[in-house]
Parts: sequence; structure tokens; C-alpha cells
Amino acid sequence: MTAAYADLEKRFHRLSLLGESIGMLNWDMSVMMPPESSEARGRQITALKLISHEMMAEPALADALDIAESELSILDDWRTANVRRMRRRWTHRTAIPADLVEAMSRAETVAETVWRTARPANDFPAILPHLTELLNLGRQAAQAKSEALGIPPYEALMDLYEPGATTAQVDELFDNYAAFLPEFLEKVLAHQATGPTPVLPDGPFPTHLQEELCRRLAEAVGFDFGTGRLDTTLHPFSGGIPEDSRITTRYDEDDFTSAMMAVLHETGHAMYERGRPAAWRYQPVGETSGLGMHESQSLIVEMQASRSREFITWAAPIARDTLGGQGDAWSSDNLYQLATRVARSFIRVDADEVTYPGHVILRYRLERAMIDGNLNPEDLPGAWSEGMKQFLDVSPPDDSQGCLQDIHWYCGMWGYFPTYTIGAMAAAQLFDAAKREETGIESGLATGDFGPLMRWLGEKVHSLGARYTTNEILKKATGRVLDPSAFKTHLNNRYLEKAQ
Amino acid sequence: MTAAYADLEKRFHRLSLLGESIGMLNWDMSVMMPPESSEARGRQITALKLISHEMMAEPALADALDIAESELSILDDWRTANVRRMRRRWTHRTAIPADLVEAMSRAETVAETVWRTARPANDFPAILPHLTELLNLGRQAAQAKSEALGIPPYEALMDLYEPGATTAQVDELFDNYAAFLPEFLEKVLAHQATGPTPVLPDGPFPTHLQEELCRRLAEAVGFDFGTGRLDTTLHPFSGGIPEDSRITTRYDEDDFTSAMMAVLHETGHAMYERGRPAAWRYQPVGETSGLGMHESQSLIVEMQASRSREFITWAAPIARDTLGGQGDAWSSDNLYQLATRVARSFIRVDADEVTYPGHVILRYRLERAMIDGNLNPEDLPGAWSEGMKQFLDVSPPDDSQGCLQDIHWYCGMWGYFPTYTIGAMAAAQLFDAAKREETGIESGLATGDFGPLMRWLGEKVHSLGARYTTNEILKKATGRVLDPSAFKTHLNNRYLEKAQ
Repeated sequence: MTAAYADLEKRFHRLSLLGESIGMLNWDMSVMMPPESSEARGRQITALKLISHEMMAEPALADALDIAESELSILDDWRTANVRRMRRRWTHRTAIPADLVEAMSRAETVAETVWRTARPANDFPAILPHLTELLNLGRQAAQAKSEALGIPPYEALMDLYEPGATTAQVDELFDNYAAFLPEFLEKVLAHQATGPTPVLPDGPFPTHLQEELCRRLAEAVGFDFGTGRLDTTLHPFSGGIPEDSRITTRYDEDDFTSAMMAVLHETGHAMYERGRPAAWRYQPVGETSGLGMHESQSLIVEMQASRSREFITWAAPIARDTLGGQGDAWSSDNLYQLATRVARSFIRVDADEVTYPGHVILRYRLERAMIDGNLNPEDLPGAWSEGMKQFLDVSPPDDSQGCLQDIHWYCGMWGYFPTYTIGAMAAAQLFDAAKREETGIESGLATGDFGPLMRWLGEKVHSLGARYTTNEILKKATGRVLDPSAFKTHLNNRYLEKAQ
Repeated sequence: MTAAYADLEKRFHRLSLLGESIGMLNWDMSVMMPPESSEARGRQITALKLISHEMMAEPALADALDIAESELSILDDWRTANVRRMRRRWTHRTAIPADLVEAMSRAETVAETVWRTARPANDFPAILPHLTELLNLGRQAAQAKSEALGIPPYEALMDLYEPGATTAQVDELFDNYAAFLPEFLEKVLAHQATGPTPVLPDGPFPTHLQEELCRRLAEAVGFDFGTGRLDTTLHPFSGGIPEDSRITTRYDEDDFTSAMMAVLHETGHAMYERGRPAAWRYQPVGETSGLGMHESQSLIVEMQASRSREFITWAAPIARDTLGGQGDAWSSDNLYQLATRVARSFIRVDADEVTYPGHVILRYRLERAMIDGNLNPEDLPGAWSEGMKQFLDVSPPDDSQGCLQDIHWYCGMWGYFPTYTIGAMAAAQLFDAAKREETGIESGLATGDFGPLMRWLGEKVHSLGARYTTNEILKKATGRVLDPSAFKTHLNNRYLEKAQ
């Protein structure tokens, strides 16, 4: 270790604790706080973010970073990776001039508020000037980051969420799936039509019983309620820290599967956080790799493992008994059909795993075109309809079920969408490799034991922290960088070959 | 406004938001967080406290303070008061050398942990070395603060909690009550023995029904759940901010009165916070005056108003109906007798309002003797027994019901105890003046309407923020500084003259 490096560790240690504190204030705002109190909370969060920004912008930090980078040859491997992560974070935080950061922050707050009424009111014209302003600012930010990182503008925005990802690779993955989807979807729907139509068990399902079921299943995955919580929120998310995981869900009294699947999804995220390398705690290299890999960990639990026939066969009677149900609707066959139902739909967050990438690829292409100056916001509704027609052969009846449905663009999150499908593909690739190496994984799921899967993921993914990119992790774990083959094979197996 | 003053406002604004964030992390730790996660939370809080400390210790802040103090003649009154509060806070924060702060923090953490097992184990020898160390450090801190503030060492510690209070005044108040208590207590107990013995209504009382009752009563006081919460915790407290009050209680399934009275108490605290002057928000002068005045606001609600015959007559049927009770035990007469029962006891937190000051005066004298070097920690158990004999004529059977019962000394909070009784006396003095000025107060309580009382307190106390000390507020509101007369008259009225 060198003096400059030691200084950096100290600075980033504090930045990490500050970031965790901000995370806690956000968790409370989403889960506990009365909505009317949000302005006062906003001021607290803004103050902590400003402090964090000022710490990052201190000239002494930049100097230490320069020195440490000149000393990499005498640092350990993980410390070298840490310096690289520090530089990346520093660049993303300092590339954008302060006045642009402030203008973005102001515009995002206003636009998000307008969006919250424009969406249900199906009023795209109301949000259009705000979207135009956000895009204008987003393009300036993209330009600034592009210069700082030496990569194209859209890629520079995406890099914040998915470090090291290139548009070339994303294009290749997405073009491949876009070409595969329409015909495959036809086949799946045709095949599905030949079987029985699954029925949703009759509710209502009291919230406290659904919660009991959710806790039981989260524990099966490996979640420890001695150092974690499950709460209710409007938009399920996973928060907290490795020593204090905070997962959330929402309950629909008529459909227990939505809360249950959301909890399994968020538990997957939480297990990644809990498995981060303790030795690198509070350092950038000790965090998680990126949002694509994060999503892969939620989807490997929710989509790969929990919608498998093995797991559902084990879980069906537990769900039935916990919720006090009876009858054929509770058979594992029926619940499996329910969990793997495919349908053309308008809304991304409700989509199945076959059509979900169609939603994502559309958004990726549209946002990239907007950032690159090839699509004007006023032309978004039309471009959206065209894309939905092309990928999923549906026409949204209005903008609220079209280009108004997601918050991302209306709060300035350009470049985020690709991570959903990178995660889905990575999950399939990891699960496939895991099953080949560990024969106990599927038999484990059949008895509600995620242990073998989690041990494999712990070794191959969680414990590596942010030392490697998505592609580097996949290369080590599966022998190759991300490609869509495992995902397509998985879909083929589940929805055509082995479908019943 | 001057440039130096404007700079100070900016600095203290940020310090205030940082303090609120720390408060939120503490609230979550007490109310939501799994206990096993406390170490990780401790690191977050320590980081924010360090940042806060460094901001306060910046030479530029001290310079601005010096300049602002030389410009007071051209500042408004409230800004002058603000500068005075800033200086006070600055002195308390910077008077103690960094290595002593660190030593105290370490020793407190260890001692508190040892105390948590030593107390139930009745093991004073186990905690003695830690208490000795804490006292040693506390005396050093007292010396440092004494020099910085120019007041005696114990007074300098007490000043942190009760700004401007002198030991001379506290001695006078406490000596007066100590002389009054033994004979008065005899009379009350004798008088009480001539009446019926109140009975506790039969439980169990389900927690959710108790909570419903508590929420109903908190709302009667004026608490707005649109910007506040009520939660469960081990040690009830009031947290949060004016725009987001967080009150807590704990439920005893066999005795609904304990949760109910705790909620009324904490609501009184919360109303003070909610009534702080919005125009001075995030400035030291916009906070509350001190802990004595804070306690007076909880006790005016809990002891003065909510144990009044008027209020209990209104609340009794509501409690009965909410909890589904029936029978004579629910009569307002019986519930009033229960709420005003006096008894000699060992434990401060369970004490009635007559004996409570006896517990406090004992602790005040002992801690002052220890800080002044006139009592060694090893002699504490003996001195404790003597004091209990003198004030309450009881002998605690062991140290766990004696000098081990309170956490304060075992986490370094020297000088805190007097605020409890300052609060009780101030509550009586304020309530007496309020009733004289506002005839609607008692009739309001008889219909569950705290409005008239709260409006009076809002004008005379809450809206003044930290602009004045306890004595200054009382002088304005009641025509005189704090004295024990109103408190003694109140006790005389409630427990002898008008007792039934």
C-alpha cells in the first residue's frame, strides 16, 4: 500500500458510509415516511449528497488518484481494481459541470411531478416540454461524460449503470433477440393455446398470510431475518446494506403470486448485496459489479429458479396451506402454468420473460436515438407504436400504456433500460453453467433448498464484488462473455420443448 | 444581515440537516432495525458525526462567529439570539479536545454494553471500573467546558442539556422540594388509604386495539398522522422533525394505561417540535429551548392535562369502548384513581409525579458530588441507599433496583437528570398560568379538545424556538422565573385538597 492509496481508501470509506446513510433515508421515505413529509426529507438527502459531491470534488482526492494510478505496479490486484473503480466513480461524478448537475436536478424534480399526473391522465403534451428539457440536459451530460471517458455519448451514460458495456455488444445481443422474438412468440402462443388455461386460485388472500408465505420463501432462498426486514411499498425494491437487508413488496389481495414473485426477485438482489466481499467493505471494489449483474441475481432467483417446475412443485402445497386454499387451482401443474404464462402486453413491468426483452429493446433503441439526436421527443409516441408493432405485434391504445408508462426518461435516467435484458441473459447463462457444474441445484430446488445454487453464485459472482465487469465475471464463471444463446435455449426448453 | 452572519446561517443550516439525518438513522435503529445490524449502523452514524464535527471545527466558522459577534448591533433581535445559540453550540462541541472526545466515545460504548448485562445481573462490581473511567473522563470534560464557558464544572455539563441553568437555582428548587416531600408524601399516602383502592381493568388488551386508542388520544392532543407516525419500541421516545414526527411507545397486554400515558407524554414532546418557528427553520435559534422546557411540554400533556379529572372523564368511555371492556373498573372515577396513584418505589421511570422528583434530586446530588470529586464511584451504592431512605423512606433490595437502574451515568450523560424535575415544575407553572388566562382549557379537556391549551402553548412556548432560556420563557409566560410553588400547589390540590 502507498500513502496516496491509503488516503484514497480513507476518503472512499467515508463516501461509502455517506452513501449508505442516503440509502437509508431513501428507504425510509419509500417505506415508512408519510408522503406529505417528502419535501423535508428531500432537503436532508440533498444536503448529504452535496457533502458527498464536495468530498469527491476535493482537489486532494484527484491528486491522490493521479499518484495512485502511477503506483499501480506496486499495489495488489484488488487494490488496483479498487483504484480503477475509484477513478470511474470520480469521473462520473465530476465530469458534469456543477451548473449542469443543478439544472438536471431541478428539471428532474419538476418533470417527475408532472409525469405523476400526466401518466394517469394520458397527457403526453403536458410532459413533452419537460421531456424535451431533460433530453437537452441529458445530451449535454452525455457529451461531457463522453469526453471524460473517451467513449460515445450514449455509451457514456449507460456506463454509469453497466460499467464497461459497449453499444456494439448491446446492439449485437439485442438485434439477435429482436430477430428471434416475433416468430418464437408466435410459436409459444400457439403451443400454449393447445394446453389448459391456468386459473388463478380464488382469493381474497389476507395480507398477513401472504407476508408469512413471502417470509417463508425468502428464507428458503437464504435470506436471514435476523439481519434484514420485509416491508410493504408501492414499488418493490431491495435496499439496505449487507448487514441489514431491506426488501419490500406490495400485496394484491386477489393475486398472491405478485407479492410472492416480487419477494423472490428482491431476495435475489439482497443475496448479492449480502454476499459482497467483507474484506473490501466500504471500498468501491467491494460493491456490486453493475446493474446488469445485479438484475441477473434477482432474475436467477425469480425467473430461473422460482419459476422452475422443481421449485413450484415444492412451493405449491406450502402456498396452499399458508393461504388456506383448496382445490385444483392449487395443483403444482396449474401454478406452474400460471407462473410461465406468456402474453403480448403493453406494460413492461407486467411482462413475462419472453416478451420482456421486446419492451426493453424498444426503449433502448428509442432512448439511444434521442440521445444521439436522431429522434425528437415529439415523435416519441409514433415511434413507440411502430416499435411495439414490430416486436410484439400490439398497438397500445394510448400513451399512458405506451411511452408514458416508465419513470426512467422523466427523471433523467438515460441508459438504464439495457441492464434489464443484460440481466435476463446473464441469469440464463449463469444458471446453465451452475447446473452443469453442480448437480445438486435442481434437486435442491425440488426440496426448497437454494443452498447449492447460492453457494455457486456466492463463489462465482457475489464474493467478487465490483472487481470485474459483467463480461469478465461471465467469462470466469461460464467460459464466455455474455451472449443470448443460454437465454434462448432456456426459453425454448421452458416454453416449447418441455412445456406441458 | 452581514456577510459573516450569512455565512454562519449557511453553515448551521447544513449542520442542522446533518443532525436530522443522524436522528433518522437513530430512530430507525431503535424502531425498525434488526438488533444484530447495530454495528454497521453505528459506523454510518459515526461517519456523519465526524463530518459534522469537522464542519463545526473549521477555522472559517470560528472566524465568522467572531466577526458576527462584533456586529450584533446591526443584526435583528432573533439573529442576535441565533448567534448566541451558535456560539453556545460551538463551545460545547469544540471545548473538549479531540482525543478526549474519542476516549469518551470508546468508553461509553464499552460501558453501555457492560451495563446491559450488569443491570439485570445486579453486578455493580462488574460495571465499577467502567463507571470510574467514565467519571474520570467526564470530570476532564467538565473541566474543559468549565474553562470554555466560564462556569463551574458540573454546571458546564448541565448547560448542554439545560442552557443557562445554574446549580444555585437548581439547588434552591430541589432543596425546597426535598424539604417538602417526606411529610407531604406521608399525608398523601394516609389520605389515599382512606379511599377505595383502584383496580386495573382486566386484560388482555390486544396490541392493535391499544394502538387504536393511542392514535385517537394523540389526535385529540393535536398530533397529525398525515405528517407523523406511531411505532413500537423498547424505550418510548419522540423523534423525527417538525414535518415528520415519530412518536413511539410499548404495549403491555395486561395494562393499557402504560402505553396510553407514554403516547400522551411523547405527543407532548412532538407538539413542541411541530410548533417550532418555521421562519427560523434549520437555524439553532429555531430549535427548542432546552431539555427542561422539552420535558415540561410532555408533562403538561401527560401529567397536568391527561391525568386531570376532566380529561379522564372524557377518555374513560373511549378507552372502554375501544378496548371492548365493561364493568366498574372502567368508571372514570376508578381510572382517575389509577392515573393518580402515589406509592413509594425504587424505580424512577415507574414513579408517580409526587415521588419522581425525589428520585431525580437524589441522582442530581450524587452525580454532582461525583463530578466535583466528593463521591467515589465505589461508594455509590451506599450513598444511593442513604438518599432513598432520606427522600422516600425505602431501601432498594439490590443495586439493579438502585444505582444500576438508569443508563445515564453508564453512557456518560452527566448533568441530564435535573431536566426531568425542572420540566415537571415548569409544566405546573405553565399550566397554572394558562388556566388563568384561558378559561376554555379545562372545559376543552372535558370534551377531549386540547386546542385551547395547545394554542396557548404554541404562542407562549413552541413558537419561540430556542430564542429564550427556560427562565426567560417562564418570565414572559407566567410573570416569574421557575419556582416550585405552582408544582406544590398542583400536588396539594390533586392529592390532598380535591382528592376523592
